[in-house]
Amino acid sequence: MKTTSIAEETFRAINAHVNKSCAVFNEDELALFNSLLEVRKVKKKTFLLQQGEICDFEAYISKGCVRSYFINENGSEVILQFGIEDWWVSDIASFHEQQPSNQFIETLEDCELLVLTVSSKEELLRQIPKFERFFRLMVQRNLTSLQHRLMNTISLTAEEKYLDFSKRYPAIAQRVPQLQIASYLGMSAEFLSKVRTRLSKKTL
Amino acid sequence: MKTTSIAEETFRAINAHVNKSCAVFNEDELALFNSLLEVRKVKKKTFLLQQGEICDFEAYISKGCVRSYFINENGSEVILQFGIEDWWVSDIASFHEQQPSNQFIETLEDCELLVLTVSSKEELLRQIPKFERFFRLMVQRNLTSLQHRLMNTISLTAEEKYLDFSKRYPAIAQRVPQLQIASYLGMSAEFLSKVRTRLSKKTL
Repeated sequence: MKTTSIAEETFRAINAHVNKSCAVFNEDELALFNSLLEVRKVKKKTFLLQQGEICDFEAYISKGCVRSYFINENGSEVILQFGIEDWWVSDIASFHEQQPSNQFIETLEDCELLVLTVSSKEELLRQIPKFERFFRLMVQRNLTSLQHRLMNTISLTAEEKYLDFSKRYPAIAQRVPQLQIASYLGMSAEFLSKVRTRLSKKTL
Repeated sequence: MKTTSIAEETFRAINAHVNKSCAVFNEDELALFNSLLEVRKVKKKTFLLQQGEICDFEAYISKGCVRSYFINENGSEVILQFGIEDWWVSDIASFHEQQPSNQFIETLEDCELLVLTVSSKEELLRQIPKFERFFRLMVQRNLTSLQHRLMNTISLTAEEKYLDFSKRYPAIAQRVPQLQIASYLGMSAEFLSKVRTRLSKKTL
């Protein structure tokens, strides 16, 4: 009985998550879904993916925080995305086209992940085609937030970028080191520090 | 009989397009799909969407060329995307969340579009759930190209941006005015002209 309740606990958040965003799945469907997920516990500062590797996972974060980034021409890290609980992390392009990734994905905290591989995802979609809709809606949300990011990167000042980030992702802004946030916003940590000082003076 | 062949001609490309990217649809399914598409012929320099409006379409471009853009803080146009034959155009965020758009979508040439509205898309997905997969794959491709664009915007030099654009989208590079390409790449037309001169000298 203990095992059952641990399993229930592990899968409760992801089951609420899929039912929230989509058509309601019944118990049998959720049981099949859960049986295809692999639970992975990963220590802080572990690479889930490195540049040049083919991404073999789409992972739901049930606990912890990750970042994806690439190395630009100057050899600097540029953060593409953070992920915390109730988000998915993957390099979708690499995962679906089975091409080498140009990204790194690294845990920033100890994490618990529920992982779909290419073959388990295909099996899920074959057995429960309704999940196509769930993944379509998920990718649409990703696309919307990436578009928002692109527009901000091109058009906002440093202060505006920081304010928008803090407003959109308050949980991440509080949890992730300033150096990482600076990298996400495309500025140095020193410059972000000046921006924050200016902003705090404005709100005094 | 004439009507039939015109209709066949109109829908041939989009039917090949959906069957190429996804599970094969049978004739009845394609007939239903086609019946839900609205054919719109639109003159050059027409707004399909303006900032503040809710985007009511996902449009397959069967003929012509469009651009989507937004106005940045300095009042300048920033091009997000071009679209030509066999591409889809929409503001997905606005379309799916039925929220006002922050984009403009404008035809650059006379266009023929095959349009799905919110309700016709829902009807299609209700009657042929297989189309969920088609749209998921389409959004994934969009996401991949937007991610590529974001990485380039952040990390490449002006010359590299122009070379990458010309290599990825040769048909667009030849067809769209230099001023529009400069806006897409985030530089002035004068600067793009200098970049092209430098590149042509290098290849002499």
